[in-house]
Amino acid sequence: MEVSNTIRIPAVQMEAEFTRILLKHGFREDKARSCASLFTTNSVDGILSHGVNRFSRFVKYVISGLIDVDAEPALVHSSGAVEQWNGNLGPGPLNAFKCTERAMELAQKSGIGCVALSNTNHWMRGGTYGWKAAKAGFVFIGWTNTIGLMPVWGATDNKLGNNPLVIAVPYGDEAIVLDMAMSQYSYGKMETKALDHSMLDFPGGYNSSNELTRDPSEILISKRPLPMDSGRGRDLL
Amino acid sequence: MEVSNTIRIPAVQMEAEFTRILLKHGFREDKARSCASLFTTNSVDGILSHGVNRFSRFVKYVISGLIDVDAEPALVHSSGAVEQWNGNLGPGPLNAFKCTERAMELAQKSGIGCVALSNTNHWMRGGTYGWKAAKAGFVFIGWTNTIGLMPVWGATDNKLGNNPLVIAVPYGDEAIVLDMAMSQYSYGKMETKALDHSMLDFPGGYNSSNELTRDPSEILISKRPLPMDSGRGRDLL
Repeated sequence: MEVSNTIRIPAVQMEAEFTRILLKHGFREDKARSCASLFTTNSVDGILSHGVNRFSRFVKYVISGLIDVDAEPALVHSSGAVEQWNGNLGPGPLNAFKCTERAMELAQKSGIGCVALSNTNHWMRGGTYGWKAAKAGFVFIGWTNTIGLMPVWGATDNKLGNNPLVIAVPYGDEAIVLDMAMSQYSYGKMETKALDHSMLDFPGGYNSSNELTRDPSEILISKRPLPMDSGRGRDLL
Repeated sequence: MEVSNTIRIPAVQMEAEFTRILLKHGFREDKARSCASLFTTNSVDGILSHGVNRFSRFVKYVISGLIDVDAEPALVHSSGAVEQWNGNLGPGPLNAFKCTERAMELAQKSGIGCVALSNTNHWMRGGTYGWKAAKAGFVFIGWTNTIGLMPVWGATDNKLGNNPLVIAVPYGDEAIVLDMAMSQYSYGKMETKALDHSMLDFPGGYNSSNELTRDPSEILISKRPLPMDSGRGRDLL
């Protein structure tokens, strides 16, 4: 007997509900709509880890003060086509949108532009910004740092950031977008798999007993994911 | 009994000999000196694959007409801080030096610069250009394409370029330079190991019988190296 705990909700209903909740937590209407749209699009695209599954954590960040709903990013330093911005702890996705737009404006003017952003928080799905730029005709390379989430080669403590890397290029009216973690499986993917109680296709890291495991829950506890591609050579043996 | 076939030559003697040979093959004196210095520095740094071991192949390219010793790179298109250059099949290292200098000039003016180079040939050690830029105070990101040298995931024919990636940042008067291949071992490293008749520390690819192997000679024949990091998960098992 198959058991399914999937609930299907129309995207418009999801977005309206996200908007309602964000308005309730002090978001200005345009900002609430922008964030609600982003979380809904990520969900519709199947990236639940940065969509519906992440929304409650985003709201918790607002409640706990990690996100200042009213803060706007501010230009700190400008040097030709390079700019430094201070996110002032405003909502991460809105800060990232703003800086993507600035990079596009700089590139429009100088052929290339580079924007660095500090004092911000989770931008959710990095590919969002790659798609935005590439669909407007720009080549985009973007990345963020993260907290320590991955051990250094041969180590057992997680000192390395699992820094996502996004590379996007225009392709007709569409875009080709690379959006990847440095680990064999992103934490988002492992969380989604763990919620589904399903195993990873390949070993994704070590459990707390130093054994390679396909169980995402064990890796989320040990915080010892393997770096990308590690499973491959093994699986072909 | 240990057998050693190492011959030690003072760097100045090596560089003088490289210069003499390049002059004999039609290089203008300043260009001969620049190339001879690059091959000598790479050798002294221990990167024999792009130093003394590669020099004869460089000369063969000149003899066969793949390298035009007199050609100069020319600006094709300029758009703000982005430029496209045509290498006109001049010596790859000299084309790469010129474009690195242009990128530095553009960055000096605009905060960031990007230069693309076509119609060129092997730039030898990518790190050379990273060191040049970073020691002058610039952050440098550079890469090249290559011919097909690596199979796509799960494939047996080598359709992917093993495109080297260089990232360099200033560090005091020195530099921190990443210069890496996309494969577990670069072809240059495998060639050096093969010349030494030594085994790789980890399996570096498949031999022609579809078996993982640590013998670099077998991988140079099969042209089926593993992508970077593949050996790791396997070795820890």
